[in-house]
Amino acid sequence: MKRAADDLASRFTEPQEGPLGSRLRRAMARFFDFVDEHGPGFAALMRGGPAVSAGGARSMSTVSATNALIDSVRQVAYDQILSHMGVVGPAPVRLELVVRSWISLVESTALIWLDGRRIPRAELEAQLVQDFAALAAVAAARDEELAALLRDLVKGEPGDGPFTDLATRLIALASP
Amino acid sequence: MKRAADDLASRFTEPQEGPLGSRLRRAMARFFDFVDEHGPGFAALMRGGPAVSAGGARSMSTVSATNALIDSVRQVAYDQILSHMGVVGPAPVRLELVVRSWISLVESTALIWLDGRRIPRAELEAQLVQDFAALAAVAAARDEELAALLRDLVKGEPGDGPFTDLATRLIALASP
Repeated sequence: MKRAADDLASRFTEPQEGPLGSRLRRAMARFFDFVDEHGPGFAALMRGGPAVSAGGARSMSTVSATNALIDSVRQVAYDQILSHMGVVGPAPVRLELVVRSWISLVESTALIWLDGRRIPRAELEAQLVQDFAALAAVAAARDEELAALLRDLVKGEPGDGPFTDLATRLIALASP
Repeated sequence: MKRAADDLASRFTEPQEGPLGSRLRRAMARFFDFVDEHGPGFAALMRGGPAVSAGGARSMSTVSATNALIDSVRQVAYDQILSHMGVVGPAPVRLELVVRSWISLVESTALIWLDGRRIPRAELEAQLVQDFAALAAVAAARDEELAALLRDLVKGEPGDGPFTDLATRLIALASP
């Protein structure tokens, strides 16, 4: 299990080059590769422990150890994202919430995808990148520091990137 | 535990009246009331079982029973939301994903909030309603049926409602 966790954590490593949206997109592709490869094992792990256990009974300390391992992978993902956003030191509290809750959105999206694979995974990878932008934008409405950070990041995005695309689409949806 | 689950599930009941955003906002307030009242117990439950166990060890079947109970509450929330969106019968697959993944976002946001309560809960309640609109809008970009449903719902929202507010803000953020 430790080996799988290390493998998963390694997939979040991404060069600090190019638009943030593209970096996030590549990390999402590698994450879904992992989910694809480990299907049922990944689902069982996220739901409190291995799918199959030798004796049919596992102690709560095994569950706690599994939780701690999953949390350590989440922490790697969290640290990576902040580093790619250029945030040094402890993140402002609302940014921390956005990043951590988005990581949990990625997990639950992967679990729902695994249940029947009814949506092409490439679509979900792209969608999750836009979800990140959307959740950050919603939070930025209440936090000037976060809004300034996002505005800087958006400047680095291409005009046909996922964030611009998202904003255009929301405008279209909001108009009668 | 069953009693707490029933209590939580009952908080998603909301009259079918007024804008969807306001209904969702009231349900969020009742959900955070529950989280507030049950703090550590809620956190432990969501992480695989009761915080304190008599013998210090619990079988995986207890964990599975807890998961099943949590899933039943999630299902109540899911059914309620679809009913308020006017969806009858099985939801289109992308709408199902949006609603289920948003429910998981609500859970993780509540867990992060409990860890230090560093953001006013009223702010998070309002933010989660906008998160729902944002995630739905992102998904609607790839699903004409969902887009049509959202356009209908937006028509029922007041001009100063959370969705219009969100769209305005995204436009401001996207402009240089």
